[in-house]
Amino acid sequence: MTNNIYINDLSKHVGEEVTLKGWIYNKRSSGKVKFLILRDGTGYLQCIVFKGNVSPEVFELADSLAQEASFEVTGTVKEEPRAVGGYELDATDVKLISESVDYPITPKEHGIEFLIDHRHLWLRSKKQVAIMKIRHRIAKAIRDFFDERGFTLFDPPIITPNASEGTSTLFEMEYFDLGKAYLTQSGQLYAEAGALALGKVYTFGPTFRAEKSKTRRHLTEFWMVEPEMAFYDLDDDMDLAEEFIEYIVQSVLKDRKAELEILERDISKLENIKRPFPRVSYDEAVKILHDNGIEFEWGNDLGAADETMISSKFDKPVMVHRYPAEIKAFYMKRDPENEKVALAVDVLAPEGYGEIIGGSQREDDYDTLVERIKEHNLPLDFFKWYLDLRKYGSVPHSGFGLGLERTVTWICGIEHVRETIPFPRMIYRNTP
Amino acid sequence: MTNNIYINDLSKHVGEEVTLKGWIYNKRSSGKVKFLILRDGTGYLQCIVFKGNVSPEVFELADSLAQEASFEVTGTVKEEPRAVGGYELDATDVKLISESVDYPITPKEHGIEFLIDHRHLWLRSKKQVAIMKIRHRIAKAIRDFFDERGFTLFDPPIITPNASEGTSTLFEMEYFDLGKAYLTQSGQLYAEAGALALGKVYTFGPTFRAEKSKTRRHLTEFWMVEPEMAFYDLDDDMDLAEEFIEYIVQSVLKDRKAELEILERDISKLENIKRPFPRVSYDEAVKILHDNGIEFEWGNDLGAADETMISSKFDKPVMVHRYPAEIKAFYMKRDPENEKVALAVDVLAPEGYGEIIGGSQREDDYDTLVERIKEHNLPLDFFKWYLDLRKYGSVPHSGFGLGLERTVTWICGIEHVRETIPFPRMIYRNTP
Repeated sequence: MTNNIYINDLSKHVGEEVTLKGWIYNKRSSGKVKFLILRDGTGYLQCIVFKGNVSPEVFELADSLAQEASFEVTGTVKEEPRAVGGYELDATDVKLISESVDYPITPKEHGIEFLIDHRHLWLRSKKQVAIMKIRHRIAKAIRDFFDERGFTLFDPPIITPNASEGTSTLFEMEYFDLGKAYLTQSGQLYAEAGALALGKVYTFGPTFRAEKSKTRRHLTEFWMVEPEMAFYDLDDDMDLAEEFIEYIVQSVLKDRKAELEILERDISKLENIKRPFPRVSYDEAVKILHDNGIEFEWGNDLGAADETMISSKFDKPVMVHRYPAEIKAFYMKRDPENEKVALAVDVLAPEGYGEIIGGSQREDDYDTLVERIKEHNLPLDFFKWYLDLRKYGSVPHSGFGLGLERTVTWICGIEHVRETIPFPRMIYRNTP
Repeated sequence: MTNNIYINDLSKHVGEEVTLKGWIYNKRSSGKVKFLILRDGTGYLQCIVFKGNVSPEVFELADSLAQEASFEVTGTVKEEPRAVGGYELDATDVKLISESVDYPITPKEHGIEFLIDHRHLWLRSKKQVAIMKIRHRIAKAIRDFFDERGFTLFDPPIITPNASEGTSTLFEMEYFDLGKAYLTQSGQLYAEAGALALGKVYTFGPTFRAEKSKTRRHLTEFWMVEPEMAFYDLDDDMDLAEEFIEYIVQSVLKDRKAELEILERDISKLENIKRPFPRVSYDEAVKILHDNGIEFEWGNDLGAADETMISSKFDKPVMVHRYPAEIKAFYMKRDPENEKVALAVDVLAPEGYGEIIGGSQREDDYDTLVERIKEHNLPLDFFKWYLDLRKYGSVPHSGFGLGLERTVTWICGIEHVRETIPFPRMIYRNTP
């Protein structure tokens, strides 16, 4: 196995002579000393090339290395609290691996279209590396949370013969001789079959919406995690969502504080994300809007501005529950105490980041569900298998979906969801 | 939070009265005693309903419960080494949650088409539950392995503007006003951009092949994990692949032995999967074929029968390396010691399960790669961003891909890959 030494291992090598490999992140010069900042994907290291310590050829090479040139550097590891990462390297040798002539992304400002055109290189920047590492930590927290709680991973199909919530925003394709198929918008209906087989399951994979939305919160391709639990009612569902969000945020704070600092995130706002979270009914949410002088008619869906107003009243995620049934999906169970509302919940992130979770208790009565499918003008025969779940040992069950990229956007405290995924797909872009 | 008690928690409740919820997996009767087998997704529990311990109504209900009816049962937990799972329940109460009339999947034999038509219910069977739990454990081992070794998760796009290995087996779609787009066959090219930004990355997501293959090893939609490492050569790549496979198999043996036993897997064959694995060059593999009387011309690709013959000579996965460059992808680096072969490796699972890993060192020279793209008649402008990776600080790098479903098939010791994913997609099927 390769004996590569990485920057984040240097604490084990203080005083030793080591060789590292990577790229020039930055460099500066001060007479007889060249300072090369090495990046290797695990961190950044200042390498000091002192004229007296190396051959003239090496000193000249160190001077000539351009941004993003790949190189190998040998030297002694020193502790240096003032340096990035806490260590420095006293270089004794430098070798060029490959040049980098006129690297397109320079320290000057670039327009966003230019940066996304060069996404394959933009990913090398300190901020983008930090976002990718936080994304990874969040994905890991998501899996750990469910794995520790006895859930079974359940990968639903991506290619689906029908749409769970209408066909207007679906990517369509031909599937051999079987006619049209669509990219999944949600694995939920399949996860329900999983929950009735395995008790508690979660899906975690890419989902697709062919929405013609150009907002800073929309991607056409994004990752979603969707837990689904047999014998959970809406209250259980909200308890789990609350515990889940706390777990994700606290995991990132524990392991990725350095990356949050690179992004200049206000960490105190995240430290505050502890249970319990406020729970307000849709009725109460409407009252908040009215109390703040916003005209809003009962029965409408909350818009982005409404959500921002509601969440601004709290310093934690707020759980809005029991929405008008009319504006919610066909599979949501109605509240037995008020048939006008569905047992649904949306979780709104603080600081105006909007909805990150949508969930509900599912309709578990066969006849009622048949009626709902008809009311929504959906093709009954497509849902025959889904109805079977209410025919053979139906049970109360609930679940929710959390959008990964919106969660990363919020936790990173950045403006636009497009920076939270390696290669974003939007209405006007499917490259590189 | 819900206080549901699950079967796999019963060791904490011996002697206590508890209530469990689930479905009837099986039942039998013996005069004054009814034996109900409860399944709840975490395990199976024999509940003893003794006529003297319950009301006449409850005894009658216990008698009437049909396969897959959902119910709630209260009783005292007893240790019983002879029972499935090691515990029994002395029932004092039984409540019906929902009936199950004429459940379609009975203990008798069903045809495979019938079973896949009822995949949403078939998943409830003991064997399918075992497979899903092993699949989950393998997916977790995959992530843990890379997370523990400093890799960053890197989710590549699913919707791509071009094909990494030709367009003949691609699912095609319209992407808004941008023309045709395709479902990804591999995240590798994108992972290479990731490795040059983050050092070591892995992708893990669904990939698609519109192949018209009807074999027991083909799905049109399957999950693949693809690590990609800067500064790794082919030997490093093979070392990692070997360690990875050992880690996966040993993780499953450690935590999912009960499920392997349900599948009647020969566990000794898995216990043997320890490093080092045999490594044979393509040239040596051809010699093995010839020595066994098989006609095979140097330069051809190994077919399924050839792979089975080669792997039958070993009781561990065998790593076949240095294939003829002509039959391998454009991005593979040629062996500097023999330009006729590519620095590629395939790992063949034992027991005739065939290829589970394909990998290579990547061509890292700009001019050579341009030439290869032209030789393969691929559109140069689509690969401009990919060529940039050789223009700005190119480094030696390698990676491989492991197919999740083929790995699950091998470890479970089952016949057909279609049982290893919740809802399989094949050329003739995209439902339910």
